[in-house]
Amino acid sequence: MENLHIPNHESVQLRKLAGDFSRHPQQLNAILEADAEILSPLSGSNEYLVVKTDGIYEEIRQKLYEDPWLIGWMVITAPLSDLAAVGTEPDGVLLSLVLSNEQDDEWMRNFQKGISDALAYYGTFLLGGDTNHDHHFSATATAIARTSRKPMMRKGIEPGQHIYCTNKMGDGNAFAYSKYFDAGKHHSFKPVARFSETKIIREFATACIDSSDGFFPALAVLSEINNVGFDISIPLFNILHQAAAEIVLTHDLPSWMLLAGPHGEYELVFSIPAKDVHVFESEAKKINWHPLYIGRSKKEISIHFLSDSLGVHCSPSKIPNLYFESGNDVNTYMNLLLDCHKNWSSTQTSVYENR
Amino acid sequence: MENLHIPNHESVQLRKLAGDFSRHPQQLNAILEADAEILSPLSGSNEYLVVKTDGIYEEIRQKLYEDPWLIGWMVITAPLSDLAAVGTEPDGVLLSLVLSNEQDDEWMRNFQKGISDALAYYGTFLLGGDTNHDHHFSATATAIARTSRKPMMRKGIEPGQHIYCTNKMGDGNAFAYSKYFDAGKHHSFKPVARFSETKIIREFATACIDSSDGFFPALAVLSEINNVGFDISIPLFNILHQAAAEIVLTHDLPSWMLLAGPHGEYELVFSIPAKDVHVFESEAKKINWHPLYIGRSKKEISIHFLSDSLGVHCSPSKIPNLYFESGNDVNTYMNLLLDCHKNWSSTQTSVYENR
Repeated sequence: MENLHIPNHESVQLRKLAGDFSRHPQQLNAILEADAEILSPLSGSNEYLVVKTDGIYEEIRQKLYEDPWLIGWMVITAPLSDLAAVGTEPDGVLLSLVLSNEQDDEWMRNFQKGISDALAYYGTFLLGGDTNHDHHFSATATAIARTSRKPMMRKGIEPGQHIYCTNKMGDGNAFAYSKYFDAGKHHSFKPVARFSETKIIREFATACIDSSDGFFPALAVLSEINNVGFDISIPLFNILHQAAAEIVLTHDLPSWMLLAGPHGEYELVFSIPAKDVHVFESEAKKINWHPLYIGRSKKEISIHFLSDSLGVHCSPSKIPNLYFESGNDVNTYMNLLLDCHKNWSSTQTSVYENR
Repeated sequence: MENLHIPNHESVQLRKLAGDFSRHPQQLNAILEADAEILSPLSGSNEYLVVKTDGIYEEIRQKLYEDPWLIGWMVITAPLSDLAAVGTEPDGVLLSLVLSNEQDDEWMRNFQKGISDALAYYGTFLLGGDTNHDHHFSATATAIARTSRKPMMRKGIEPGQHIYCTNKMGDGNAFAYSKYFDAGKHHSFKPVARFSETKIIREFATACIDSSDGFFPALAVLSEINNVGFDISIPLFNILHQAAAEIVLTHDLPSWMLLAGPHGEYELVFSIPAKDVHVFESEAKKINWHPLYIGRSKKEISIHFLSDSLGVHCSPSKIPNLYFESGNDVNTYMNLLLDCHKNWSSTQTSVYENR
């Protein structure tokens, strides 16, 4: 069996980067413990302050996002998805733009349209920003919220809790795959921050994270923060978003690869105590939402899943570490994923037929 | 006489960029009306929310900032200076970093030291951040504050009010001049956000702005927002920071050029009603601070100043527009400044002897 206790490279790097700075005495979350940063109310107040900053760089430079409307939509959606993951509605957004000579007026109009469409969709506002000039365009947004309700964290999962997603997964990976390896056939990528769903989730969940980096990277962070593992009992093919399922079938790829990240789909992944599952699901039904049950948390720090005919039992960090090891190169990453699958296929003894 | 009513190119561009977005109904400041973005308290609360995002790009790319410690110090100081300009102490800072392969471990340690030195100096905290990878390093910080005191704006100046700076000016320009044209002789650039001074300023000032883009650009924004002009009665050479004065004397440059921006010194420029000047100055004396009186606001939308032997009467936008017209190129900018001075010298009828 593989080593089940390898460190998550991304977390190690983040902790190294942030490690030497002392934390705000009123900050509720330690590093990595929540999707957004949370400050407790000032004395005499009941308002939590929730903030999150998120930049769009690699996606532009690696030409994953080329449509200026999509860039505008995503720069707003990315930090708002983190606010949804802590169960908080935004007060507004700040924008830091780097403009270059590569963008003409029409490009900028479409980019601004993406931003204003997103702001209108979420019912929030641009509060201000900062403009710089450089060789390449990039955009960073900071979302801000005040709330009297204590925000959700990534921390709080006990073994035996039920793990759900807001929706089918893999659309983010499907978008990236078709962009890089299939002449951009899949064009409908437009994730949304899950504010309707989170109003129900926050009533029951013990922990929540968004899948902006993909499904397996989200599970790896939840595993690390909560010191738990996961048994994914639903066959992965059944979790897949239609676009991802089509790629699996057309290109004969294993289902798990469409859930590997690092480009995610901005769904929420969260845990519900077994005793609350029934009432949670019936509350969800009232808004016509069917949360996707995927499995349970467990004491052993490993992840177990069924990808088509293959059963895998591995360290939660195994899959997210592959992108890190690729040096962020798309083709190297694809080869590492395929190699990993080949290894698993040759060493696994348990074989399932689940598709 | 020159045209006194030319638009400020930087403001025009900013308004164009932000113009189509609707404002938050609780946002106190319209675009450009404050150094930071201000949201009024939620109902039942008395807490204003103050936020500001600021990126360090051009300064790195144009090799103005090369010392990683200085980059770390500045990325924190820049947005905090805007909080000082609205009279608010920070709750904390979010950091969005773009890492590249150009930075080794020692560079990163010095950068982090600059950040932690600044955080310690201001008594504030890093709340969280976001890390990306790209060809070049850059850093954006967002400062956040909650306050029950209504923040200061750039708006509120009436004609006849007294204009002050927190300190002598021109250090930012001196740093840039020596970096680009004098083999980096001036090394001591380390501006600080003026939190001690702002505690007194906010008791009296009708408007306040920081000089992060330079002294004349700050006056141009105050002029545009308040529909006033300024008579700078103190000879400019007397306003100059020692490093700037030395450059003026050594290189025979006109004093006004060391106050032209766009690289400023992060002092505060503010207006005090005539009736409050005496008590304001005596409060300042109590903390051993001597605010620098520079002149008065006036009804006519023009700016009048004495630069060494030259008296100038021009549009408030005249000087800040020169950098915009240079296309952000340092050498072109220098030539435009020198041409402007030549024109003024040849057409001005009034000649003073002030140095």
